Amino acid sequence: MPFTMADLNTIKNLLISFRDERNWRQFHTLKNLIVSLNLEAAELLELMQWKTDEELTALKTDAGFQEQLRDECADVLHYLLLIAEDNGFDLIEASQRKIAKNALRYPVEQSYGSAKKYTELKLEDRARRN
Amino acid sequence: MPFTMADLNTIKNLLISFRDERNWRQFHTLKNLIVSLNLEAAELLELMQWKTDEELTALKTDAGFQEQLRDECADVLHYLLLIAEDNGFDLIEASQRKIAKNALRYPVEQSYGSAKKYTELKLEDRARRN
Amino acid sequence: MPFTMADLNTIKNLLISFRDERNWRQFHTLKNLIVSLNLEAAELLELMQWKTDEELTALKTDAGFQEQLRDECADVLHYLLLIAEDNGFDLIEASQRKIAKNALRYPVEQSYGSAKKYTELKLEDRARRN
Amino acid sequence: MPFTMADLNTIKNLLISFRDERNWRQFHTLKNLIVSLNLEAAELLELMQWKTDEELTALKTDAGFQEQLRDECADVLHYLLLIAEDNGFDLIEASQRKIAKNALRYPVEQSYGSAKKYTELKLEDRARRN
Repeated sequence: MPFTMADLNTIKNLLISFRDERNWRQFHTLKNLIVSLNLEAAELLELMQWKTDEELTALKTDAGFQEQLRDECADVLHYLLLIAEDNGFDLIEASQRKIAKNALRYPVEQSYGSAKKYTELKLEDRARRN
Repeated sequence: MPFTMADLNTIKNLLISFRDERNWRQFHTLKNLIVSLNLEAAELLELMQWKTDEELTALKTDAGFQEQLRDECADVLHYLLLIAEDNGFDLIEASQRKIAKNALRYPVEQSYGSAKKYTELKLEDRARRN
Repeated sequence: MPFTMADLNTIKNLLISFRDERNWRQFHTLKNLIVSLNLEAAELLELMQWKTDEELTALKTDAGFQEQLRDECADVLHYLLLIAEDNGFDLIEASQRKIAKNALRYPVEQSYGSAKKYTELKLEDRARRN
Repeated sequence: MPFTMADLNTIKNLLISFRDERNWRQFHTLKNLIVSLNLEAAELLELMQWKTDEELTALKTDAGFQEQLRDECADVLHYLLLIAEDNGFDLIEASQRKIAKNALRYPVEQSYGSAKKYTELKLEDRARRN
């Protein structure tokens, strides 16, 4: 099955060919790419509109729902790759750097089992030390 | 430099370790992951708020702006990977399938140089045949 | 208390004065207004990020949370009024027309107790008649 | 013509009747209302996707586009009113208070002709005083 062989770089190249065959680069300003990414994110949001957590758990085995979920996630990924290409950075590298940054922002002991933002964690930490 | 060696699967595993070390899985319902992805998408949108296309082109060489752009793109990617993991699908495979679907929706001759949606292209095509 | 005396038209005029005193009209293209409205909507979304329905019910009596909620709602309203002014329509009139449209889309008997979209209701209705 | 006689309170009452006739209150948790408001905001965003400022200016006299714009703005307003009702506040009053807050955040002399955020204005102001 060829679908699992590809990596993110292959996908990026497929997208660029797709774009250039259709002469679409002219539309792909950073502004337009970000707007389009937000619209695809909103389509994900629409998939869960009015649904309870229980209904969404049940939809894990619903083939139609899962296909929509996969398609919308793919659309978001595609705009990420086009933004990365347009601005000359590597998405995997950006991701690794951000994970390293997050590890500093969310030390395990302070963030264990807590959904607080790092900005709130900092304040708590400061209060504790004073 | 280790940053370019990783693939998407490595990133996914890093994210899962990060989540589980902090006991955060309990917060990662599909609803919460989709809401958070939309918030990260909005942070990308905020990066371009009030800016003209010319200003954004100039920011391609602004190190601070580019770091923000990379960080927000990474955050969006991370939620995509967490959604994929939670629903048991492979993001690369989803992406390849979606590109194949888009190739059918946007035939080169009909979509060349046009920003129209496939739903509009269909109508045009139908009108032309009638 | 002067705050309850105003109507939407007064608010619109306050906003226009505010904008013009600061020479901000130049930034208020339709695109920029819509992007900014989406960012304010995202700030509402952020208010409920990671929170359960129970936590949000408890926050109904939290003065700080309620102030944030009111402020973000006001920000969204302000962009609506600026969009309406820029495009020469009356928001109240637009609202009345849309409610009339929705009444046709969602007949009481078909939509009673159902969170389905009118596009789904239509299909059901059609299926029932066939 | 009855459409211009109504005020925001009338609209709110129409919406509540609409909701209650359909037994929809059960779906109107704060979370669901905020998600739905964001989806309506995204429909506004979609109206400007791929369009240039020039194209959007031309659409000011396009009846079909203007109707879509009015409808989507109305949908956003409706969710604002439902959120306000659910949390027991008055949207007009919230709006007046927020405008007063913004007047403090954006003094005319500092913000004249500038699209900077108040957080940036503050930093500038502080730097100037030091």
